Amino acid sequence: MTGLPAASPSVSHEPLFLRACRRQPVERTPVWIMRQAGRYLPEYRALREEHDFLTACRTPELACEITLQPVKRLGVDAAILFSDILVPLPGMGVEVAFEPAPVLERSIRSAEDVAGLRTPEAAEATGFVLEAIGLLRRELPEQVPLIGFAGAPFTVATYLIEGGGSRSFAATKEMLFAAPDLAHELLGKCTVTLASYLAEQVAAGAQAVMLFDTWAGMLGPRDYEEFARPYAWRVLNAASQVASLEGAPPTLYYAGESAGYLELCAAVGADVVGVDWRIGLDEARRRLGDTVAVQGNLDPGVLLGPRERIRERVAAVLREARALELGGEPGSTAAAPGHIFNLGHGILPATPPEHAEALVAFVRELSSPGGA
Amino acid sequence: MTGLPAASPSVSHEPLFLRACRRQPVERTPVWIMRQAGRYLPEYRALREEHDFLTACRTPELACEITLQPVKRLGVDAAILFSDILVPLPGMGVEVAFEPAPVLERSIRSAEDVAGLRTPEAAEATGFVLEAIGLLRRELPEQVPLIGFAGAPFTVATYLIEGGGSRSFAATKEMLFAAPDLAHELLGKCTVTLASYLAEQVAAGAQAVMLFDTWAGMLGPRDYEEFARPYAWRVLNAASQVASLEGAPPTLYYAGESAGYLELCAAVGADVVGVDWRIGLDEARRRLGDTVAVQGNLDPGVLLGPRERIRERVAAVLREARALELGGEPGSTAAAPGHIFNLGHGILPATPPEHAEALVAFVRELSSPGGA
Repeated sequence: MTGLPAASPSVSHEPLFLRACRRQPVERTPVWIMRQAGRYLPEYRALREEHDFLTACRTPELACEITLQPVKRLGVDAAILFSDILVPLPGMGVEVAFEPAPVLERSIRSAEDVAGLRTPEAAEATGFVLEAIGLLRRELPEQVPLIGFAGAPFTVATYLIEGGGSRSFAATKEMLFAAPDLAHELLGKCTVTLASYLAEQVAAGAQAVMLFDTWAGMLGPRDYEEFARPYAWRVLNAASQVASLEGAPPTLYYAGESAGYLELCAAVGADVVGVDWRIGLDEARRRLGDTVAVQGNLDPGVLLGPRERIRERVAAVLREARALELGGEPGSTAAAPGHIFNLGHGILPATPPEHAEALVAFVRELSSPGGA
Repeated sequence: MTGLPAASPSVSHEPLFLRACRRQPVERTPVWIMRQAGRYLPEYRALREEHDFLTACRTPELACEITLQPVKRLGVDAAILFSDILVPLPGMGVEVAFEPAPVLERSIRSAEDVAGLRTPEAAEATGFVLEAIGLLRRELPEQVPLIGFAGAPFTVATYLIEGGGSRSFAATKEMLFAAPDLAHELLGKCTVTLASYLAEQVAAGAQAVMLFDTWAGMLGPRDYEEFARPYAWRVLNAASQVASLEGAPPTLYYAGESAGYLELCAAVGADVVGVDWRIGLDEARRRLGDTVAVQGNLDPGVLLGPRERIRERVAAVLREARALELGGEPGSTAAAPGHIFNLGHGILPATPPEHAEALVAFVRELSSPGGA
């Protein structure tokens, strides 16, 4: 619990990002970028020449430095801890290598495999993450909140079952459909581990938390309801009940390729639902309803195009975000309440850094009063 | 035009599959399986030990034999030509190897690359496909229609641009957003080639045609409207205007991961829209409207589970397919009009063949009068 500011900021000075998460009034639309600390940045690649990926994740000073890189360069409205959703696995008893795709030392498929998994306390297994959060809270400007994150239980379980990434998720599907009880036992262990992990991040100073259910979209709606959402709900609930110095942190939830059952994602209990670019943001807001904020959803590929295309597409996303509130009419403010601008997926490694800079500048300009 | 039956079957004896495509009354729900001729079948693997994949595609007798394998084993209601969506590429001037993922000899990215592509006549470049269709029409039972197919222009273009498969489609996105005119030129050439290719399949005897827009789901709705749908429409339109001996063939269209803009897919001009398993079939039918039939949409992973799970999930898909017509009430017939049962994606190679057999048997049983 080192490194917290001496006093919480008063509500009226609360950072833009946190206000948008809570659907409170904003003077413009906040913006950050999924994977904003990463390979498209030359300063990241320079640091990675000296340190491998896991070392960077596990060394608080390095994780802190990498987390700050896009804050300094882009002027984003939130920082997200540099880490990986598989960082908690060694604490469960499964080592992970990044080559660069993740490869687990073994896959978890039998009852014995599941029984052998540990459910570690976060402080013991991933203390380096909590330390990095402490460092970051000292370094970050007051107006740039720190987002902690974890993988959602279903998504983390797919890695354990497959022994790495997958395209068909055949081993996962086989467990879900042939041995659902075992799948639930595995998901339960992932949930205990990840709930502790995310809650401890809040206790250590994370001002918001995000749960990535990257592979939830491999499931149909019925299986999402059985194998993904209840577990994600438990992790989010655990994190939101931590009595931090700054009150309950907003929670964000991202389920990839979930356009077929976005309504279900609205009920996961998060304050903010992140959506990918495969659905219009107006349609997404309509289907999510007005009890959650929305984050997204520019196609990351747009950043490979020229500046004028980026500007045009930023304007289109901001327009779609406003469609519901204003009944489609031009309004007095360009920023839709309850909208956080982001890409619909992680930034592509081939992105020119100056295009990421342009993105942030365009969101600031076009969502400010009179900007649209 | 060899091998056609001496007389067209009268309407009342028209095969079940073709009637379902046209939303005409059916006595039960027809069923076939995407990739039904393939690696999960031991008889296919045995044949492939002697012949490589491309040789099998390019030898009419082999393609015919492989196409017939699942018809004989499973008793499906339609056959689909054994081939690959990249088979037309060599005729355009780009060789393809399968290792087993497709690898193109070069990628198409510059104006010169695009200008150098040929738009061959199907009869000259892919005569072996037309020959295989002729053989199949002699071999297939009258009640099992033959589906010809092609990749949709956008999907084929992604392979040309990327030089193979991709996960991020970064090179494709770069062309779409940085050089849209060039992208349209490339898409136009793919369209000319594929329209001829699919139309010639109809002329050779294919009784229905399916267009696979496997990667359309990599686009947001606006880009789908610009870069995918109009080109798919042109290919489908060309194929449906061929005056075959048996009248205009029904057209089927499958766009992967399109749940975010399924409404748009309904306007592609196909008689049948295939949907993946990431959306409930009831919701899919509601959004597609009542002017198209629907094909799908069991999660292929269900076939990795036990027989009782397969039966339960087949019943669920049939129930969802009926939801609109019957207002959710149990009706006098178990088969929904305008529904063709299929998986939501290709069958997984790890599927036990007896589970595919069980799937077909369950659809026949549960969709017959009194079966549900």
